[in-house]
Amino acid sequence: MAVSARRCGDLLSLLRDKRPLVHNITNAVAMDISANVLLALGASPAMIMAPEEVEDFAAVADGLVANIGTLSVESVKAMRLAAAKMNALGKPWVLDPVGCGATPFRLAAARGLVDLKPTIIRGNPGEIAALGGALGGSRGVDTVMTAKAATKDAASLARLSGSVVAMTGETDYVAAGATMLTVAGGAAVMPYVTALGCSLSASVAAFAAVADSPLEAAVAALAMFGVVGAHAARQSDAPASFRTAFIDGLYRLEPDALAAEVEIGEVTGLA
Amino acid sequence: MAVSARRCGDLLSLLRDKRPLVHNITNAVAMDISANVLLALGASPAMIMAPEEVEDFAAVADGLVANIGTLSVESVKAMRLAAAKMNALGKPWVLDPVGCGATPFRLAAARGLVDLKPTIIRGNPGEIAALGGALGGSRGVDTVMTAKAATKDAASLARLSGSVVAMTGETDYVAAGATMLTVAGGAAVMPYVTALGCSLSASVAAFAAVADSPLEAAVAALAMFGVVGAHAARQSDAPASFRTAFIDGLYRLEPDALAAEVEIGEVTGLA
Amino acid sequence: MAVSARRCGDLLSLLRDKRPLVHNITNAVAMDISANVLLALGASPAMIMAPEEVEDFAAVADGLVANIGTLSVESVKAMRLAAAKMNALGKPWVLDPVGCGATPFRLAAARGLVDLKPTIIRGNPGEIAALGGALGGSRGVDTVMTAKAATKDAASLARLSGSVVAMTGETDYVAAGATMLTVAGGAAVMPYVTALGCSLSASVAAFAAVADSPLEAAVAALAMFGVVGAHAARQSDAPASFRTAFIDGLYRLEPDALAAEVEIGEVTGLA
Repeated sequence: MAVSARRCGDLLSLLRDKRPLVHNITNAVAMDISANVLLALGASPAMIMAPEEVEDFAAVADGLVANIGTLSVESVKAMRLAAAKMNALGKPWVLDPVGCGATPFRLAAARGLVDLKPTIIRGNPGEIAALGGALGGSRGVDTVMTAKAATKDAASLARLSGSVVAMTGETDYVAAGATMLTVAGGAAVMPYVTALGCSLSASVAAFAAVADSPLEAAVAALAMFGVVGAHAARQSDAPASFRTAFIDGLYRLEPDALAAEVEIGEVTGLA
Repeated sequence: MAVSARRCGDLLSLLRDKRPLVHNITNAVAMDISANVLLALGASPAMIMAPEEVEDFAAVADGLVANIGTLSVESVKAMRLAAAKMNALGKPWVLDPVGCGATPFRLAAARGLVDLKPTIIRGNPGEIAALGGALGGSRGVDTVMTAKAATKDAASLARLSGSVVAMTGETDYVAAGATMLTVAGGAAVMPYVTALGCSLSASVAAFAAVADSPLEAAVAALAMFGVVGAHAARQSDAPASFRTAFIDGLYRLEPDALAAEVEIGEVTGLA
Repeated sequence: MAVSARRCGDLLSLLRDKRPLVHNITNAVAMDISANVLLALGASPAMIMAPEEVEDFAAVADGLVANIGTLSVESVKAMRLAAAKMNALGKPWVLDPVGCGATPFRLAAARGLVDLKPTIIRGNPGEIAALGGALGGSRGVDTVMTAKAATKDAASLARLSGSVVAMTGETDYVAAGATMLTVAGGAAVMPYVTALGCSLSASVAAFAAVADSPLEAAVAALAMFGVVGAHAARQSDAPASFRTAFIDGLYRLEPDALAAEVEIGEVTGLA
């Protein structure tokens, strides 16, 4: 297997030792939960959005997340400047293409960021299909898609973009070149907590700042959300108290518990 | 009675079946709680604010809320574009005129949006009085007002604007043409939770997307907040734990419980 | 001692009687928690950010907080307009120079606001050192600093700017002219709750609106956070449930309990 359960636990230990500084250019809904999730997990968050300063800040950050949720012309400009700086310095950045299939403006912004070669793209099946289909040139973004079709889009997007693609849902898929891994876990109530996926993208950036490869960073972050989500669901099945239990759970998670409970699989036979 | 308790429960069932997509152009304080409230209730929230894309998104949304809390020239432009698109497509939109009496800039923005004929206006007595008085031409916005005076302003605003007016406070009033209904319920701690009123306006938009009339949509949303507020107050009388209990309560609310506990009345003898 | 424990309790009573209107021009992360903290404490928050209206709103507000966390050219313009209006009307305002040492853009914005003579500056040791060193002209912002060095920077910043300087950390320091007081309390988990420091700055503005001097306002607000933080830590040592307990604790705090538990000291022998 390309990433071991033990490695996920070790990466969490490493992250807490190094306390990476994560630069967030993110949406207005995700601000509070992203910062709280990063703090709970052991990283150091900063929300720095002004085009006048994002390059200077990217220069000192250890990782970046660019999230287009409540994008504006100004914020996309900031994302592009910061991403280019991370590329120039050889540091990782994560694209979260929130709702990129919903409008032409949003799809153009997401595609433009994909062109800048994100280290990792983290999205849901609809978002990955919109990007993968667009890059592949053959599918409209409104196509009703099956999970299987989205998996193919994830593989296609990973191949064409060169990015690691983390597609999250009931089961998570991580595509890197010709490899596709699965990560299980989580809880049914998670889609009822707003911006939890955005805070996962920020967590992927934190892991990428300390990992040896984007693939292991994405898998470790997804695995952590899966394990802590399952823990928190034992405390509550309703969204607001679940959210509290989830953030507390990240803070309390022991690397050994993560390594013991991770469920990673591999998808074979992809074209 | 113009709206029955049973109808409120049925509308909640319908909302959960249809899962309406609610387009939010709202303030920075209300982002997190509005999205979480809409998810808990069974709707699908999207925060889409850029003038470049709001018309495209309005075209696919089922309802819109325009909230001027942290307004800017840019966000008011976005609200106007989205509202006009909803009007053109015959879909409902809700105006939340947050603090519209506080500055001339804010009052002008709110009046300009009222001119676009919102389906429903949801505000507190001070906001409704500022709008109602302004439209009526006879009262300054700083007038110290009685509950009775604000009720007259609500009726006047409904008559002059053609919108349904939902004015919330200890008792809620809903004015539609010559009809005025009351909705009871809620809890004393609710004003200590920020942006709970904003999330109510978003919920009104969700109900309007599935209801037969704006009047029943407003009444059902207000009734739901009243019933769930009373439930949550039995769990906590302090604001942060109340907020958690409230959102969990929306998620767990059964349509039959809503129908059984709604308290709707009618005000007669208005001019 | 310059500020008595009894006075802290009395100021909390006074604040709840007067319910000061606090104008917030703050960052996107701090919106939700700042508004909820101000409400819980007994103040009335308003987030009003548009340059077109901030002077009009400052004219009716009782206090202002200017926080540069997610600053933009536009928001700094709004902060400067509102601060100048508060100065013209003799009303207090608080500067929170979030991360001011991180980029030149941010440091220039913070220095420009210091030039407008804030009533109180509230920051962490790194921020105060960046401002104090810059004003003193002798230290780079990246200097590794000891707690002692930061204390000297706080004293220097207070002397040179004329502002009261509240520097918070494990122990809090408040510098006013030649006086330096300490405030103890709080909990180890507090740095893991995002924007809690920002909400403290907003609370300082609320106290400044009702106090006789900026020094007693800063001390009372810091003391309140210290006492309530210690209370909440008895309920939870993890960040999300701590946050809930903290806000509930502010709402429930009795002035007598505050007066009984405040720990204020004085630093002597400063140059």
